[in-house]
Amino acid sequence: MDRNQVTQKIISTKVAKQLRWADLATQFGQSKEWTTAALLGQMTFSRAQADKAQEIFDLTDEEAAWLQIVPYKGSLPTAVPTDPLIYRWYEIVSVYGTTIKELIHEEFGDGIMSAIDFSMNIQREADPKGDRVQVVLSGKFLPYKSY
Amino acid sequence: MDRNQVTQKIISTKVAKQLRWADLATQFGQSKEWTTAALLGQMTFSRAQADKAQEIFDLTDEEAAWLQIVPYKGSLPTAVPTDPLIYRWYEIVSVYGTTIKELIHEEFGDGIMSAIDFSMNIQREADPKGDRVQVVLSGKFLPYKSY
Amino acid sequence: MDRNQVTQKIISTKVAKQLRWADLATQFGQSKEWTTAALLGQMTFSRAQADKAQEIFDLTDEEAAWLQIVPYKGSLPTAVPTDPLIYRWYEIVSVYGTTIKELIHEEFGDGIMSAIDFSMNIQREADPKGDRVQVVLSGKFLPYKSY
Amino acid sequence: MDRNQVTQKIISTKVAKQLRWADLATQFGQSKEWTTAALLGQMTFSRAQADKAQEIFDLTDEEAAWLQIVPYKGSLPTAVPTDPLIYRWYEIVSVYGTTIKELIHEEFGDGIMSAIDFSMNIQREADPKGDRVQVVLSGKFLPYKSY
Amino acid sequence: MDRNQVTQKIISTKVAKQLRWADLATQFGQSKEWTTAALLGQMTFSRAQADKAQEIFDLTDEEAAWLQIVPYKGSLPTAVPTDPLIYRWYEIVSVYGTTIKELIHEEFGDGIMSAIDFSMNIQREADPKGDRVQVVLSGKFLPYKSY
Amino acid sequence: MDRNQVTQKIISTKVAKQLRWADLATQFGQSKEWTTAALLGQMTFSRAQADKAQEIFDLTDEEAAWLQIVPYKGSLPTAVPTDPLIYRWYEIVSVYGTTIKELIHEEFGDGIMSAIDFSMNIQREADPKGDRVQVVLSGKFLPYKSY
Amino acid sequence: MDRNQVTQKIISTKVAKQLRWADLATQFGQSKEWTTAALLGQMTFSRAQADKAQEIFDLTDEEAAWLQIVPYKGSLPTAVPTDPLIYRWYEIVSVYGTTIKELIHEEFGDGIMSAIDFSMNIQREADPKGDRVQVVLSGKFLPYKSY
Amino acid sequence: MDRNQVTQKIISTKVAKQLRWADLATQFGQSKEWTTAALLGQMTFSRAQADKAQEIFDLTDEEAAWLQIVPYKGSLPTAVPTDPLIYRWYEIVSVYGTTIKELIHEEFGDGIMSAIDFSMNIQREADPKGDRVQVVLSGKFLPYKSY
Amino acid sequence: MDRNQVTQKIISTKVAKQLRWADLATQFGQSKEWTTAALLGQMTFSRAQADKAQEIFDLTDEEAAWLQIVPYKGSLPTAVPTDPLIYRWYEIVSVYGTTIKELIHEEFGDGIMSAIDFSMNIQREADPKGDRVQVVLSGKFLPYKSY
Amino acid sequence: MDRNQVTQKIISTKVAKQLRWADLATQFGQSKEWTTAALLGQMTFSRAQADKAQEIFDLTDEEAAWLQIVPYKGSLPTAVPTDPLIYRWYEIVSVYGTTIKELIHEEFGDGIMSAIDFSMNIQREADPKGDRVQVVLSGKFLPYKSY
Repeated sequence: MDRNQVTQKIISTKVAKQLRWADLATQFGQSKEWTTAALLGQMTFSRAQADKAQEIFDLTDEEAAWLQIVPYKGSLPTAVPTDPLIYRWYEIVSVYGTTIKELIHEEFGDGIMSAIDFSMNIQREADPKGDRVQVVLSGKFLPYKSY
Repeated sequence: MDRNQVTQKIISTKVAKQLRWADLATQFGQSKEWTTAALLGQMTFSRAQADKAQEIFDLTDEEAAWLQIVPYKGSLPTAVPTDPLIYRWYEIVSVYGTTIKELIHEEFGDGIMSAIDFSMNIQREADPKGDRVQVVLSGKFLPYKSY
Repeated sequence: MDRNQVTQKIISTKVAKQLRWADLATQFGQSKEWTTAALLGQMTFSRAQADKAQEIFDLTDEEAAWLQIVPYKGSLPTAVPTDPLIYRWYEIVSVYGTTIKELIHEEFGDGIMSAIDFSMNIQREADPKGDRVQVVLSGKFLPYKSY
Repeated sequence: MDRNQVTQKIISTKVAKQLRWADLATQFGQSKEWTTAALLGQMTFSRAQADKAQEIFDLTDEEAAWLQIVPYKGSLPTAVPTDPLIYRWYEIVSVYGTTIKELIHEEFGDGIMSAIDFSMNIQREADPKGDRVQVVLSGKFLPYKSY
Repeated sequence: MDRNQVTQKIISTKVAKQLRWADLATQFGQSKEWTTAALLGQMTFSRAQADKAQEIFDLTDEEAAWLQIVPYKGSLPTAVPTDPLIYRWYEIVSVYGTTIKELIHEEFGDGIMSAIDFSMNIQREADPKGDRVQVVLSGKFLPYKSY
Repeated sequence: MDRNQVTQKIISTKVAKQLRWADLATQFGQSKEWTTAALLGQMTFSRAQADKAQEIFDLTDEEAAWLQIVPYKGSLPTAVPTDPLIYRWYEIVSVYGTTIKELIHEEFGDGIMSAIDFSMNIQREADPKGDRVQVVLSGKFLPYKSY
Repeated sequence: MDRNQVTQKIISTKVAKQLRWADLATQFGQSKEWTTAALLGQMTFSRAQADKAQEIFDLTDEEAAWLQIVPYKGSLPTAVPTDPLIYRWYEIVSVYGTTIKELIHEEFGDGIMSAIDFSMNIQREADPKGDRVQVVLSGKFLPYKSY
Repeated sequence: MDRNQVTQKIISTKVAKQLRWADLATQFGQSKEWTTAALLGQMTFSRAQADKAQEIFDLTDEEAAWLQIVPYKGSLPTAVPTDPLIYRWYEIVSVYGTTIKELIHEEFGDGIMSAIDFSMNIQREADPKGDRVQVVLSGKFLPYKSY
Repeated sequence: MDRNQVTQKIISTKVAKQLRWADLATQFGQSKEWTTAALLGQMTFSRAQADKAQEIFDLTDEEAAWLQIVPYKGSLPTAVPTDPLIYRWYEIVSVYGTTIKELIHEEFGDGIMSAIDFSMNIQREADPKGDRVQVVLSGKFLPYKSY
Repeated sequence: MDRNQVTQKIISTKVAKQLRWADLATQFGQSKEWTTAALLGQMTFSRAQADKAQEIFDLTDEEAAWLQIVPYKGSLPTAVPTDPLIYRWYEIVSVYGTTIKELIHEEFGDGIMSAIDFSMNIQREADPKGDRVQVVLSGKFLPYKSY
């Protein structure tokens, strides 16, 4: 058994029980972003969170134990994603990557925006010309230092 | 001559004249995100914008003409970027890609968040534990339809 | 269980029952292009469409539930397709890609032809020198805007 | 000297002289699709067409000679294109590739739609909800035969 | 079930029954080249040919039905083949590719040698210095045309 | 200086002087296939052949010396060729590769068809339904032996 | 069933029975290099050799039949091997490849060292500073010829 | 300036002066294998060796200085080499890689054959059936140890 | 059965029994680094170590035999790792690779730091600004020598 | 002009002036690791550091300005490095990557070892069996947090 198999079971059960990510997040008491990433096999559960997942998804004890092991992360089957929704994000990195780099460096100096000390919030933004997806990303700035 | 050569000249002149992206944006009367992307060769200039660029960067008429031609977009030299700042964005797509997909689909149904009818805003977010980079992305939701 | 397994069952059943895509489209009341793409795992079914599919392909309730989940799209096993029919389309993109880009930009300005707000129609075009395949693609033009 | 250098000169001159593809096509007496592909280095010119190009783009005799040599075709710098407009076409092949394959085979049997005995027509399709790009592709069906 | 599984069963049965491709070709009344390609999953069987295959390889009705479905073609596991016999053919394309291109264009003008309206004949060529493999390829020339 | 530069000069001169491969072959007293491959930088010239090339293409002594050095072979810019004529050959290897392998092994046992002790002949094959390209390949069979 | 499965069974049985390659070679009456390559699925067995293998590894008749079929060769899972021992050989090709090429051409002219009419011998070379692995490779020189 | 440019000059001068690797090795008092690898940019020269090279190849002081800098090693333009002579070596690694691994481990245990504490000797091996290339590789065995 | 299956069983059992790598190392009497690498399928066990592993992880005799066979090494599913923790190490090689190379060569001359005669020690480094991971790598310097 | 050109000039000047990295570090008052990485184009200079570099390497004002611009990082020409010294580091990541991951997670929980808030120290470690390269890496642990 490995984490992928537990993830597959969770997704399968979610479909069969017709659960929603937003409701699951409420049950875990976490954001819908963290909860979804965790259930999709990218984050590590605490003991209490794993117990909750065990109950919701009818997991065995061994399956619940796997949720508490740090997973090998990376959720995509290819380096350049084929799925159109995810590709658009890859395209943002490709087209705006150097822009993002320049503007962060201009404001903060040399360093990075952390993808670890990081959070994300995905919302509907009502718009008369067609609703929009608004995503707020927040990552700690980590400076390179000379030593 | 091609657009890359104009971009190289713009970057070179910016370094030599010690200009800032934020100030350049003010001169163009556009956001710093669009202005930077455009000057880095990813967007198309109107005639007026090209004239302004010609003046700031001492461009020839032919160089200014190139700015009004739609460029072949994509700003990165490799499919998986090596630069740490840009890689963190690739990592966000890799680790959170399926999460973003699930949450947008749950809220909007099948479709994508546009990377064309799209804007971005990069800000400093003051934080006592270390300032953060906050990025707000806004893209129109475009639904798949059966036909 | 995942969507791929449902797709495999649908294809297998189609072969065993000797069904035709065009007839299936009639049963779904949709174009043969959308219907085929959907049954091949690239589109999302409404509840009513999933019920219809369940009946035609003897699906279980869980299999029918999967049809209503947005799939991870992309139907090809390699980035450059090996199948000669599909490769010819890749070749059109490779040989005529920059031509298509130039002509759309000349007519519409900077932007893209949407692959989401998109439809396709494939027809036989009778020709005394040998019949031809005629394909009409229609995609909404989405302009880049400065902001 | 090679064909790429002639293509670069043609594109450069077109920008400098602010020419349009549609007008150039009229001068060559060919469709705008063929004319653009040819000028972008993908097609071979007849003697008369090369003379015309020489005149329009101020080419040397050697440059005009190169236009009559069959070029090494393929207009894109990477196997998966990064430019958003061209990528959407790659995405159509990726998402609808197996659909196109199934529908052509159902109508014609085993074989391909030719990308050589092929023509293309790109038009604006007026639409109150936003104009659309309409592309008609026509390729001869070539059957596989047993022997 | 898919075509690959039928192909695997055919190969397995051929090994177990110690059949020869040349004899199988005689039974199908086709060339050994077409017959082998078809049994290896690259070509489509007519009803009569599928019946014959069903009999020889003890196929089920569903397996025989699969033989009449156009397969996804491409017989190699990697883009550059590792098997030495097949690699030598890849090497011919790599070393002589531009030569073949130049000579066909010199004789026929711009266009291609079809790989669809195509046949192949593989023979032993007796030679006192060591027998040779002689392969005759015949493909229809298809010209590019301006339009 | 390297061999590529000499090849570029040879091709350039051939275009400027409007020479034909077949005539060049006559001048070298070799087949048009070997001559073309050699002039395209894939084969090694003897002293006499290099002298002849020097005369035809106005080469310097150093350029003629390079023709007698064994070149680094491989004439294509990408592992999977983008040019349609050359791709069709790649496609033959991809679709018929396992067929060729099986039939040579059935006739000769384990081993390969040499791509070194090899010759090729490209001819027009008149055909009322459209002329064909006929290519005869002949390569010595080299057996694997146990030791 | 395919050859890989037979290879897996042979390796598994070798581990379970704690057999040595050198002893197996003695039983087959061949070199340890050929014997190992053959048992690892890269070479073809004669009938007598297959009978011997059947006896040693408790193979079924069908498994023994597979050993007499020419395998699809290539023993590594990736183009650049990750295993350190095998990588060192790849590194020798990478670092010394052009050296080997130059020295063989200087001695023999244009051509190759055959990897088919080829043998290999791996020995321990005692050395007070630490024993060494000595490998002797012998391949027939095959010249390119003009024709 | 970088080492590649020095290597290009050395190769160019060698061609122009019609020098032989074997003679150059004598001048350096080293094996022809080391000498060739060093002159092709893969090894580092001592001061005395660089002086010798400066004299033979008419190098400037700066060029001679570059020979004493450790180069970035790797002599091939692609991960899988296209040149037939070098490819045969890649093929030996591909086909016999697991064999070499098994036999070295059986004799020495876990570890590698060094490609650093390594030497190579390339010789003609006279053979009535056609001369052979004999290559002797000798690399120190380096064991993995538990710690 | 192969080593991967044994590794999977070991990992699975470790999770089920909630064992820690550091405690397992104590049981094997080796460093936690070697022990972990070995249990993850990268190192070879002695007979005594395999007996110990058999006892801890309830392995069968055949599974224990596999632990004593040298494995095919390389622990990552892709050439560029997607997991963020492992990617940071890849990034260190990418960003600091040439730096490491220069500094080792400046101190030791041409050669490498061995990854075979190698050990590693991973420790927590207490720090008031946030604890750090300290890793000490020690590899024997192996010089290139001329010969 | 871009940063690469400045880096090339710095390396070239260093070779011509026979400077040592360790001495340069002293002049900059930084560690030899940071100094080397910075001079090799991976780090950003302060104004004072750029002035110092200008003086040592005879840089123009524009070149010195480039040193203060954050560079696009990544020092290697290929994703898998070919240089043996750097490859050994890639191999450590490949062979020990999962080990490093497990041990850091066991000690610290889910998170990463920073490659930004990071330092490195490379030393000679005297050893009677042959001196060793000792490298100490220190990176801040950054935990993933649920939110």
